[in-house]
Amino acid sequence: MDSRTGLPTVGMVGGGQLARMTHQAAIALGQSLRVLAEHPDDSAALVAPDVSLGSHLDLAALREFAARCDVVTFDHEHVPGDHIRSLAAGGHTVYPSAEALRYAQDKAVMRQRLSDLGIPVPRYLVVPSDDVTGPDEVVDRVTAFGRDAGWPVVVKTARGGYDGRGVWVVRDADAVRDLVTGFEPVPDLVLEELVPLSRELAAVVARSPFGQAAAWPVVETVQEDGICVEVVAPAPELPEDRAAAATRLALTVAHRLDVVGVLAVELFDVPVSSAAPDGLQVNELAMRPHNSAHWTMDGSVTGQFEQHLRAVLDYPLGRTDAVAPWTVMGNVLGGPADGPGAAVSLDERVHHLAARFPDVKVHLYGKGYRPGRKLGHVNVCGSDLAELRRRARLSAQWLGDGVWADGWSSDEAATAEAGGDR
Amino acid sequence: MDSRTGLPTVGMVGGGQLARMTHQAAIALGQSLRVLAEHPDDSAALVAPDVSLGSHLDLAALREFAARCDVVTFDHEHVPGDHIRSLAAGGHTVYPSAEALRYAQDKAVMRQRLSDLGIPVPRYLVVPSDDVTGPDEVVDRVTAFGRDAGWPVVVKTARGGYDGRGVWVVRDADAVRDLVTGFEPVPDLVLEELVPLSRELAAVVARSPFGQAAAWPVVETVQEDGICVEVVAPAPELPEDRAAAATRLALTVAHRLDVVGVLAVELFDVPVSSAAPDGLQVNELAMRPHNSAHWTMDGSVTGQFEQHLRAVLDYPLGRTDAVAPWTVMGNVLGGPADGPGAAVSLDERVHHLAARFPDVKVHLYGKGYRPGRKLGHVNVCGSDLAELRRRARLSAQWLGDGVWADGWSSDEAATAEAGGDR
Repeated sequence: MDSRTGLPTVGMVGGGQLARMTHQAAIALGQSLRVLAEHPDDSAALVAPDVSLGSHLDLAALREFAARCDVVTFDHEHVPGDHIRSLAAGGHTVYPSAEALRYAQDKAVMRQRLSDLGIPVPRYLVVPSDDVTGPDEVVDRVTAFGRDAGWPVVVKTARGGYDGRGVWVVRDADAVRDLVTGFEPVPDLVLEELVPLSRELAAVVARSPFGQAAAWPVVETVQEDGICVEVVAPAPELPEDRAAAATRLALTVAHRLDVVGVLAVELFDVPVSSAAPDGLQVNELAMRPHNSAHWTMDGSVTGQFEQHLRAVLDYPLGRTDAVAPWTVMGNVLGGPADGPGAAVSLDERVHHLAARFPDVKVHLYGKGYRPGRKLGHVNVCGSDLAELRRRARLSAQWLGDGVWADGWSSDEAATAEAGGDR
Repeated sequence: MDSRTGLPTVGMVGGGQLARMTHQAAIALGQSLRVLAEHPDDSAALVAPDVSLGSHLDLAALREFAARCDVVTFDHEHVPGDHIRSLAAGGHTVYPSAEALRYAQDKAVMRQRLSDLGIPVPRYLVVPSDDVTGPDEVVDRVTAFGRDAGWPVVVKTARGGYDGRGVWVVRDADAVRDLVTGFEPVPDLVLEELVPLSRELAAVVARSPFGQAAAWPVVETVQEDGICVEVVAPAPELPEDRAAAATRLALTVAHRLDVVGVLAVELFDVPVSSAAPDGLQVNELAMRPHNSAHWTMDGSVTGQFEQHLRAVLDYPLGRTDAVAPWTVMGNVLGGPADGPGAAVSLDERVHHLAARFPDVKVHLYGKGYRPGRKLGHVNVCGSDLAELRRRARLSAQWLGDGVWADGWSSDEAATAEAGGDR
């Protein structure tokens, strides 16, 4: 508790963009986020005054950090469960708990638990590393699964993958052999059928220790090369009953796994079947503010970063209504280092974006440039979905690449495009 | 320019809540605001990592600060013009300029200049301190003005007043004598007729060095004891032509005074007359983000703090459309230290507010409690104006006093009031 303001102090382990934007939300609540960052130039460390430098793997650093916070929460899923349990045993309030976070840390454990709860997931098989004698046996297991469930097979490492890393699609036994040869040592694996999905959805909710939960509208997430590039809120043409089923499913997961904070449930939109009675299967879980809800910063009464703070503080949750018929989020990914726009500085990019689309909201993370790196995102709200998607795509690509994909030139354009339609 | 991100650095002189909220906006633009604060526990110093401690009256401190910024701007109007000119002469970019800011610093100069520009202002008389031999002559001048323009007379100090300080309404010669006896020494004064206003309005615009300007909808501001307690956006029942005239007037002031950044023009809504052909007269000017535009943080596509940054950086300005039919802002003023709710901690207040009104947006400034002090504000958006005003009033008062003015008790209430109507 801050003795001067009488308000609590939340600490976040990890100094990435999620912590950065959580600090931004904390300011409105009269607070200032404490951050445990690895490097002084981490995204959040650049904007928050109370930063401790240390590793999320170092229990002593975590303990020292937690001693100065009323609640500890996380920017990522990489804090070992044993460390979290140690903090809790030491009397610190930590959300989500180690028991809940486990299901976002380990896909094998998550698949098993969701199956047990009767929640639809793709057909899967866990292959624990200590259950196989070596790479040859892994190949045999995957091949048998492929024969049984059909090729191609999705091979995932149980822990540590994100943004498409740690996930491979293999088409036959030869491809399996090539993949497994690269493993050293063989990790715990989860094998899954390649689901005939029409698209990906996300149902994002927040839940407090008191047990209150609030859900944002279900969104469509668009991936390229395993990385989310676009989110459309709400998901276009999603039948009302399927949207309600997705929300119900996310609330059930939050409740049954005792999640506190934001929970994102990534879903496959699939044909209705006995394995997907509502036309939905769970892909992944994330227990923290999530890319699929970045649209809420501008598109909802309560943004996900404020809601995560409310939840871990056991404050009542905020309204989650959309403030416009549609919001589109576009991720800004660093373009090729030798691309045609590489020489255009980020300052110039922001300048020209503001000139062309005065209604597009920019969120930059202060990160150094690297090809493919998530450098920020844009949101745009309104009522003409096709136009919003055009603006979000063009804007995100321009900020990432320094190139307007439609050839627009600021030199030729006398005026901004008429902005917004709310 | 931040060499790592390639983005510019804005520095703000003054560490109050305006700097605090400007930092919040800077985060989205990939930046971090530099702040020159007087005390380490100033509102902005609590949330921004790059804070220099120093006085805005100390030229050496200003110079050292400016050397680390691409643009310098202000949280308040109290930096001496000569200091600002020195910075500019030293090659620093400072917005607004000393020449523009003068009109927000000195009411005598402002009244004269606006009159010269043909902009309607109340009937006034400047009484420079070096033009009077002593208090008796001040009494004579005010009395003569009262005889001429009618009693009561509004007496204002030309410089240094704000939130009702430095403004007195005197009803007769005796009251003038009582007032003037308290002056030591006699300051420069501006005498004004007490305008028969029906209400106060504010037209807030932003302008960039390039000359681009953008205006938010004209709002009604509600004052109590000279302090703004409520803002309604847009101003209810304001005829379209009067709203357009108010906007035109603010854009004219911004242009003619070469303002850069946010400009708030406080207006009196008065009967149409030869002295007020559009039914409007200018009360005050502020050249910085302003209380009358706090509603834009939740109620407009572009909030005033982001817009101020865009303007001083000479970025193209953002869209200023409202995102809901109505937004109401309520100021949170510290209640009496011995009031019935004084024992209710701010944490409890936030908690119960969140429980009762999940659609109300809270903005707290991290300031220590003091009766009458502006501790924060709330915004609420929707379509039922009377209900929004009720929510904003109750919420602001609850946060300030720890008392629900309507007697609501969280113990009796089973659920939150149905929130929002967007």
